[in-house]
Amino acid sequence: MDNTDMSFSHCGIVGLGLLGGSLAIDLRHHFPQMTITGVARRQETLEEAARLRYRDLPVFTHLTTELGAVRETDVIVLCTPVQTVIEQLAELATLAAPGTIVTDVGSTKRMVMNAAATALPAGVFFVGGHPMAGSDRAGLSHARAGLYRDATWALCTPEGAEGAAARLCELIEILGAQPLPIDPVFHDGMVGLTSHLPHIVACALSTQVLGNPNREMVRAFIAGGFRDTTRIAAANTAMWRDICLTNRDNIVRELNTLIASFEQWRDALRAGDEPHLEALLATAHGLREELNA
Amino acid sequence: MDNTDMSFSHCGIVGLGLLGGSLAIDLRHHFPQMTITGVARRQETLEEAARLRYRDLPVFTHLTTELGAVRETDVIVLCTPVQTVIEQLAELATLAAPGTIVTDVGSTKRMVMNAAATALPAGVFFVGGHPMAGSDRAGLSHARAGLYRDATWALCTPEGAEGAAARLCELIEILGAQPLPIDPVFHDGMVGLTSHLPHIVACALSTQVLGNPNREMVRAFIAGGFRDTTRIAAANTAMWRDICLTNRDNIVRELNTLIASFEQWRDALRAGDEPHLEALLATAHGLREELNA
Repeated sequence: MDNTDMSFSHCGIVGLGLLGGSLAIDLRHHFPQMTITGVARRQETLEEAARLRYRDLPVFTHLTTELGAVRETDVIVLCTPVQTVIEQLAELATLAAPGTIVTDVGSTKRMVMNAAATALPAGVFFVGGHPMAGSDRAGLSHARAGLYRDATWALCTPEGAEGAAARLCELIEILGAQPLPIDPVFHDGMVGLTSHLPHIVACALSTQVLGNPNREMVRAFIAGGFRDTTRIAAANTAMWRDICLTNRDNIVRELNTLIASFEQWRDALRAGDEPHLEALLATAHGLREELNA
Repeated sequence: MDNTDMSFSHCGIVGLGLLGGSLAIDLRHHFPQMTITGVARRQETLEEAARLRYRDLPVFTHLTTELGAVRETDVIVLCTPVQTVIEQLAELATLAAPGTIVTDVGSTKRMVMNAAATALPAGVFFVGGHPMAGSDRAGLSHARAGLYRDATWALCTPEGAEGAAARLCELIEILGAQPLPIDPVFHDGMVGLTSHLPHIVACALSTQVLGNPNREMVRAFIAGGFRDTTRIAAANTAMWRDICLTNRDNIVRELNTLIASFEQWRDALRAGDEPHLEALLATAHGLREELNA
């Protein structure tokens, strides 16, 4: 692909954590000439970002704590926790120039889409985004080239923003990710099941096991299985607080289903019901093996 | 260490899956002269075992379906599911020669210790073992050298078997593992928390997510977090059925605690209780981060 034809010349990245930092690195890789403005709240983050280089080039052209600096950009990517995205959309209402494309990388989409529809003036185009490329290793220090390669990148496009979505798709594909157009209600239901429920499970399990007073013995008995099962619990707290608060109904529903399932396991165990236990184990085994295949 | 002084000259390995197979490979590595007899129920397993070589040497000296073949050995390692271990201990009562040391690698220890105490005659020494070195990849085809390296290897030693335990410790250390003397009641409580609970969690989560009728979308939305969290659900069903059935009280207790914890999360989500959710997330984050450190 001839990247010199790419239509974005100045990108604003707001929030310089794992996702924002990795995006900047990939953009610098594919577009050595692009102006990239990074916005972060903390001075230490800006200093760390100023040291980021891709090959011989600094990753960021400008770095600032001021959201106003994105006024001149043609695409703004909000990489902050979801509730901050919602606040920043309100601020962008008076900051973004007509024609600007705004997107985000947050893990829930309904409340963000509503906030954008309410806040942004006509002529500023919002397309909600969610690249499925997170990690338990949060923060700019873990940012890396290629984070988005082969990831599914959900896109929620409101009526009238189809042109903006097409330009974002082009960019997403250059990063090696797969755009997936999706309805925000359906999106939030899906991620409630496939991502938010597993996260809460990993958290509850971490707390129960690692919070046990017999710390030394617990450490001796922990094997690879537990480490795998709970790895994601180490992820960023503020990001997950906002995910939880903006997808409450879906997560509550999935948690209730899971609790009912644990009650089944518990009752089968209590009764020593061998065929039932074997069936529960075999079902899980079969489904999970298929995913490995 | 001078392995030629090692006191075992003939080892019987009963059950040729991941653990039994890997043990045989490591023994052949450290003791090229050792006679190693492998016992498995299925003919295909014996054929696969007959092809196993470590460097230039066949791993197994003899292979058979007959448990009676261990009559001549000086150490017998039962690597079958726990309920089979219990059955085989009864058979060994009339098979094992006086002076033989018998051990196992099962994940629960109370019922095995009781079965050995009841079944085995005086002069046959049983020491219960549990190397914490499992994997979701079961079966002889995944057996490999070094599986036990750096693993904790729990050992339950009945009164009178101290000499046998000392010889097993020596062997375990040669494999690079750390023997951990432990009481069977304490052991089963610990693994109920650190291993059996996480396994059931991974199973229940796999079934709920992967059993969703919208299979294609679920696949598109699954990222690394879910794969990690549920990896162990693909493990061997028969082995886990026996673990569940021989540690029911401990697993039921841990499941009840986990259910209560999920109810807390659910209620905090329902209420939109931001400080409570943040506290739940921060506690899990802190504990899990510490494990990474």
